[in-house]
Amino acid sequence: MKVAVLGTGGGARAHIAKLVELGHEVHVGTRDPQATLARTEPDMMGTPPFKQFLADHPGIELHTFGDAAAASDGLVINGIDGHNAVAALSAIADRLAGKTLIDYAVPYIYNPDIERPWPTPWGVNPILDPCDSDSLGEQIQRALPRTKVVKAFVTQEQATVVDPQAIGGGDHTMFVAGEDDDTKQQVTDLLKEYGWTDVLDLGSLIAARAMEMYAHMHGAIGIALGFGTHFGIKVVR
Amino acid sequence: MKVAVLGTGGGARAHIAKLVELGHEVHVGTRDPQATLARTEPDMMGTPPFKQFLADHPGIELHTFGDAAAASDGLVINGIDGHNAVAALSAIADRLAGKTLIDYAVPYIYNPDIERPWPTPWGVNPILDPCDSDSLGEQIQRALPRTKVVKAFVTQEQATVVDPQAIGGGDHTMFVAGEDDDTKQQVTDLLKEYGWTDVLDLGSLIAARAMEMYAHMHGAIGIALGFGTHFGIKVVR
Repeated sequence: MKVAVLGTGGGARAHIAKLVELGHEVHVGTRDPQATLARTEPDMMGTPPFKQFLADHPGIELHTFGDAAAASDGLVINGIDGHNAVAALSAIADRLAGKTLIDYAVPYIYNPDIERPWPTPWGVNPILDPCDSDSLGEQIQRALPRTKVVKAFVTQEQATVVDPQAIGGGDHTMFVAGEDDDTKQQVTDLLKEYGWTDVLDLGSLIAARAMEMYAHMHGAIGIALGFGTHFGIKVVR
Repeated sequence: MKVAVLGTGGGARAHIAKLVELGHEVHVGTRDPQATLARTEPDMMGTPPFKQFLADHPGIELHTFGDAAAASDGLVINGIDGHNAVAALSAIADRLAGKTLIDYAVPYIYNPDIERPWPTPWGVNPILDPCDSDSLGEQIQRALPRTKVVKAFVTQEQATVVDPQAIGGGDHTMFVAGEDDDTKQQVTDLLKEYGWTDVLDLGSLIAARAMEMYAHMHGAIGIALGFGTHFGIKVVR
């Protein structure tokens, strides 16, 4: 397949590297390709410059967001951070028309001055906006009526999403939600390529609310197990 | 132990029956014992009258909320619905002083006129209030500074909480959160009596936000599996 990945952060890179490894043609989108390639320092998350990642993963095409989306033959993975996703995707709505967009963003708000962060023992935890009465997945779908949005990947670290076998022999559960069964099957097929054996369809995109709100539970479990411990969630039935 | 269970609904009854089966002395609290005993019709959830439940489970004492709490020798299980919990518990703060209170309520708001319910395919889903920036567990703890509150049980149906072995051989995960390690151990000991083998301490009571917000994920998974399917969540690591 020709797959587009929008974003060059750590999560996006996990998908890019895995898709290349699986033999797919990967088109990476960034806001400003020249600026992305000009960076020589790690970003604030400690992620090395993307130019170095490209050198380590030959054969990847770097484009603008719009050109990357247009180069996809059906599947686009949104790795743009939650705060900027709706604006960035709306700006390329024409290029995304007719495609399937997988959204895994959590709409975290990190500004402690204007928001109501959790005063956690380990520092300030972000809150979610939207939350409960709406979701980022639904906002993106409303902004892109000609694109079929599937919420997925959001309940795991992206390193685990592309390598589920690394945890507990791979017997844990991935969730998908969206309005269209065919595109959810398309995403499920990709997940099977990634190594997932248990993919649970949570129904329509309204379940994106539940999936995004699960982010705090994911964080709490991760902290309880100890930073750096990888884990999955298995729906036992 | 002498355990108090506050509430006479389906969730409370699961705990009452299990505690009696385990040989504990159970003191049940209700707002108005005479009114509870006078009921002869099932409630709006279809739960049979409590008088019938008492006839089927001899040896249970029915009291007011305050008298039941006072009769406990340490452990109180709060089965009062989320909407009424803070007011009802505040009114008996003196009787709860020095005890451990296990709270499993979800602060659902069901009023579709004044709130923002989810227009789900299966009807109206409640929203949470408080949500994200506070939790019911923390509200109860603030209202009861002389009581040690532990949030637990909330991520499962109560029928599963008292019978974890019924699902997947019992290999799934229960979560606890609270400010005090000794009371979390007390609750963990009770969970082990119930049959739990994997109890994960999520740290301070701020994790009650994550646990309550997980309620929508629990609902979405339940709907995806089909109404009446029981399930558990295993943290695979």
